[in-house]
Amino acid sequence: MSNVDRFDPFEGRLGFALASRVGSLVFVSGMTGLQIATDTVPNDLADQMRQAYENIGRILAHYGTSLANTIEHTIFFVGAAPAARTANDVVCRETFGNDAPAATMVGVTMLVEPRYHVEIKVVAAIGGSS
Amino acid sequence: MSNVDRFDPFEGRLGFALASRVGSLVFVSGMTGLQIATDTVPNDLADQMRQAYENIGRILAHYGTSLANTIEHTIFFVGAAPAARTANDVVCRETFGNDAPAATMVGVTMLVEPRYHVEIKVVAAIGGSS
Amino acid sequence: MSNVDRFDPFEGRLGFALASRVGSLVFVSGMTGLQIATDTVPNDLADQMRQAYENIGRILAHYGTSLANTIEHTIFFVGAAPAARTANDVVCRETFGNDAPAATMVGVTMLVEPRYHVEIKVVAAIGGSS
Repeated sequence: MSNVDRFDPFEGRLGFALASRVGSLVFVSGMTGLQIATDTVPNDLADQMRQAYENIGRILAHYGTSLANTIEHTIFFVGAAPAARTANDVVCRETFGNDAPAATMVGVTMLVEPRYHVEIKVVAAIGGSS
Repeated sequence: MSNVDRFDPFEGRLGFALASRVGSLVFVSGMTGLQIATDTVPNDLADQMRQAYENIGRILAHYGTSLANTIEHTIFFVGAAPAARTANDVVCRETFGNDAPAATMVGVTMLVEPRYHVEIKVVAAIGGSS
Repeated sequence: MSNVDRFDPFEGRLGFALASRVGSLVFVSGMTGLQIATDTVPNDLADQMRQAYENIGRILAHYGTSLANTIEHTIFFVGAAPAARTANDVVCRETFGNDAPAATMVGVTMLVEPRYHVEIKVVAAIGGSS
C-alpha cells in the first residue's frame, strides 16, 4: 500500500490525478484556465490565471484546505513576459492579498493545448493551527 | 550534519545526485531517455519516456520504493505538443495504470543535450502501510 | 491559521514571498542573478548563477539552514544549452563540492526580465542532526 493519496474524480480517464496528498502536503497538477463546465478558455491572460486559481482552489477544498495555505506556485506562461508579469501581478494580488507564497515564473514554448497560455502548479499545506 | 540523504552512486562526478531523500519524500533528478549501459537514446519520443520512467524506477528502488508511490511528475518536452501528449498518454497508462499521480506538462526550448526530447522530474513517497 | 510560514521581508510589495516553510521543508522562490543592492545583473551566465545561489543562501539563512541542505534545485536557463551546462558544472562544483543535490535543468523561452538568463528554484531542508 502506498501512503500517497490521489484525488482523481475522473477515475483514471484523464491519465493523471488532479492532486496527490502525502502527509500534510498537497501537490496539485498543473492547472490551466479551462472552464470545465463549458470546455472553454478565456481569451484574456489574466482571466486564464483567475480560472486556474479557481480550479486549484476547488481541488484544495477536497483536502479541506485552500489557496491561503499555498506553499509555492510555479507559473508557466506562453507569450511575452511583460504581459504575463502584469497579469500575474494583478491576479496574485487578488488571490493572495499581501500574504503571497513563494513563486517561480518562466516562459515556455507551449502547453498541452494552444488555447492555454498559462499553467500554474501549486504545492499547498493542509492547514493546521500551529 | 544535514538531514538530507543524497543518492549519488557516481560520487560527485556527475555534478548532481540522482535523488535526494528527506523524511519519507524522495526528489528524483530530472531523468531523460538515456540508456546508461550503451549511452544511447531511443529516437521515438514514447520510447524516451519509457526509458526515463525505467531510470526513475531504478533510482526509487534504492530507497525501497517504486513508481507506484509517485506523488507528482513534471514532464518537460521539446517539440510539438500533440505528439508529446499522445506519447505521454500511452506511456503514463503503461506506467501508472488507472492510478496516475498529479502531473504537469510543459514545452521547453531545449534540454541539456539535443538528443533528449523529454525530461521527467518525479517526487515520490517512501511507501507506508497507512 | 495556516501552518505555512512565509519569509517576505518586503511585506507584500513584491507580490511573492522569498520563501515558504512548512515543517522542516523550505521552498525558495525562483531566484535570478539580481544584485539587490545595486539593481544590476552580471552579464556572464556563470556570474548570474553565482549571484542566484548567493541570494538563495541568504534566504535559507533566515531559516537557520544553508545551501548544504539543498534537497533539489531546478535550473531554468535562457539561451544555448552547452553554455548553460558548462556554467552550471562550474558553479555547482563551487557551490556544492562533491555533495550536490538532485537537479533538473531545462531551457525556457524567457524569464520575467530579459536581463535574466537563469532562474534557480531550490527546495531545502532545515538541518537536523540525524
